[in-house]
Amino acid sequence: MESRFARRMDGLRASEIRELLKVTERPEVISLAGGLPAAELFPVEELKAVALRVLEEHGRSAMQYSTTEGHLPLRAWIARRMTERLGATTNVDDVLITSGSQQAIDLTGKLFLDEGDVVLCESPTYLGALNAFRAYQPRFMEVPTDDEGMIVSELERRLADVRRVKLVYVVPDFQNPTGRTWSLERRRRFMEVVRRHGVTVVEDCPYSEVRFEGMPIPPLKSMDAAGQVVFLGTFSKVFCPGFRIGWAAASRPLVEKYVLAKQGSDLHTSTISQMEIATYLSMFDIDANLRRIREVYRARRDAMIRALEQELPASARFTRPQGGLFLWVELPPNVNARELLQRCLERGVVFVPGGSFFPDGGHENTIRLNYSNMPEERIAEGMRRLGAAVREMLAQSSAGARRAV
Amino acid sequence: MESRFARRMDGLRASEIRELLKVTERPEVISLAGGLPAAELFPVEELKAVALRVLEEHGRSAMQYSTTEGHLPLRAWIARRMTERLGATTNVDDVLITSGSQQAIDLTGKLFLDEGDVVLCESPTYLGALNAFRAYQPRFMEVPTDDEGMIVSELERRLADVRRVKLVYVVPDFQNPTGRTWSLERRRRFMEVVRRHGVTVVEDCPYSEVRFEGMPIPPLKSMDAAGQVVFLGTFSKVFCPGFRIGWAAASRPLVEKYVLAKQGSDLHTSTISQMEIATYLSMFDIDANLRRIREVYRARRDAMIRALEQELPASARFTRPQGGLFLWVELPPNVNARELLQRCLERGVVFVPGGSFFPDGGHENTIRLNYSNMPEERIAEGMRRLGAAVREMLAQSSAGARRAV
Repeated sequence: MESRFARRMDGLRASEIRELLKVTERPEVISLAGGLPAAELFPVEELKAVALRVLEEHGRSAMQYSTTEGHLPLRAWIARRMTERLGATTNVDDVLITSGSQQAIDLTGKLFLDEGDVVLCESPTYLGALNAFRAYQPRFMEVPTDDEGMIVSELERRLADVRRVKLVYVVPDFQNPTGRTWSLERRRRFMEVVRRHGVTVVEDCPYSEVRFEGMPIPPLKSMDAAGQVVFLGTFSKVFCPGFRIGWAAASRPLVEKYVLAKQGSDLHTSTISQMEIATYLSMFDIDANLRRIREVYRARRDAMIRALEQELPASARFTRPQGGLFLWVELPPNVNARELLQRCLERGVVFVPGGSFFPDGGHENTIRLNYSNMPEERIAEGMRRLGAAVREMLAQSSAGARRAV
Repeated sequence: MESRFARRMDGLRASEIRELLKVTERPEVISLAGGLPAAELFPVEELKAVALRVLEEHGRSAMQYSTTEGHLPLRAWIARRMTERLGATTNVDDVLITSGSQQAIDLTGKLFLDEGDVVLCESPTYLGALNAFRAYQPRFMEVPTDDEGMIVSELERRLADVRRVKLVYVVPDFQNPTGRTWSLERRRRFMEVVRRHGVTVVEDCPYSEVRFEGMPIPPLKSMDAAGQVVFLGTFSKVFCPGFRIGWAAASRPLVEKYVLAKQGSDLHTSTISQMEIATYLSMFDIDANLRRIREVYRARRDAMIRALEQELPASARFTRPQGGLFLWVELPPNVNARELLQRCLERGVVFVPGGSFFPDGGHENTIRLNYSNMPEERIAEGMRRLGAAVREMLAQSSAGARRAV
């Protein structure tokens, strides 16, 4: 039978990253493609103690249905952490637990977007957000972005000129895909502009606590006097992603709307997983865990930067992130990253071509590299293979150019 | 700041059931409102062994991101179970793991429904499905239903006359809210009609394995030669709901579309929860667990029926389900169930007024009773309180009628 799908399905396509993950399950492949945290740092032994404690203490209620809002002690921990660590005053009622922060993005689309509404985003931006929002058929509009963040005059121009802007979606800390972090000054000016225009801001912060260099910069949420910022957080990068536990923090009336949307989407997030994270947080020191993560990721970023400096041609540029999981490379304009990926697959190294992160397309000479999930020597080897493939393409391209002359 | 929400949010309202669950957390309240399984039957001790085994065997990969499709051994178990137990031949590739079957309903809406498309459903139908679908702004059309299932001539008339019918949503086994089960003959005739019209059928089967009386009747999926039935299953009623693990089983091309939609919604369902259920299924005998569930639920249904026969006026009618969690009562036409609920709240017993289960409204003299989550003596006591409240309303109503005369 031929199924008739909704029109929104025309715009949905398989995520290149997810499809690549299938290839990268082969152990011989050096994958710099996914966004996987370093699994060797997951606290497996601690989790055994946690799992037993949860079943001892909560028993049957850990296995039962629970409220859509989420497990109260976990929401309370998040509210405290956001208030004390990030300077964003948050009450327990302002927090909704979600099935990963990906679900929080999906619920945001469900809550706000009618077909044809406009979402402003950084250029480039997180591909998973584009995919989540696409189900609600908005138009995306890229706002030019530099090393300090979204360019505020460009944002202001669009807010003034474009009708139906519903959301501004941003990742200010160690952005996926570029690894860039917004400066404090840029955040302040951004908030002045959005305050004047009264538009809802989605501040997606999966990496904020994974800073291994420099001083933390307060989130937009901490500068939000009007209740217009929705902050998205997750335990995926500071604990582990397999539990799928994230959250949205917003003004209480907004959280009530999210709760309504989540009821229809999946009733609530896993009771036992929420209790396990809350129990882990009470039994163990997540900051000690974070220190290990930061140390390892810094060493891996360093290994990647050292190798890139040796392997890439002088005309290539790349970011030097102070945290997070990703680094962004601009190759010479005549190197097509999708073609490069094909060559790299043969050499056993994979990455994500950068073009997918631009809703308007283009930028086919960019790539996103992940450094969190491979040991330093594998990163160095991966960069050697990548460098060889780039040199090969450049040589053929200049040979082709000579022939053409 | 005043937020501008999407138009779909106009139609979403808080589920009465979910709001009631908050009241029912008070231990003195006899709750026949929720759809909670009997928590005392959850295999807590077994789960301790399972949790340790998963962390021993899978360790870090249990805590890592995983594929959208789901954990392969769990999908394989489901495919075998559906093939061997339900007679619905299913391959592992036909199964997508979802975050509860509620998410499978939501994804179905996302996949199929444009604004104004029509969803045909039983009258009454599952409230959670209405809430999930409402986010995609369809029109619902009730199809009259009797004790044997959807009335096929009424279905056929609508399929012939109504444009833009995209889905037929049904719960053929021990339906929520009525407890009714479709006869085999009705299923066959239903399948003939939908085959002729080539419409997609969503067969929601959360309760099918919780049959405590009579012979199992094959699911619609087992009669589906054209690949037009999407079967939704869940571990919530046969194991426990706190894990939020369900599935959709459909033709492979359809599953691929579901995978796309799920990627945007939450990337994937909890890795560790999927592994825990798969490990439970390999270490323990779920059928022994099911036998305990069936025995207890039968005794509770019996207790409820005995009490209803004593407590309700002769003009009331109720169903006698052969499985599942719910029983349906039609009170005398002059008893308004929402008003009755207010009186019952004062007496410490709660249920769900039936009107919410009809998309077109009306039927305000009906109620849904859950018998799975209270011991027999509490059920009997709850029915006594309910009966007293009904008699009180009837007495006042006839006194009012006398005054009016």
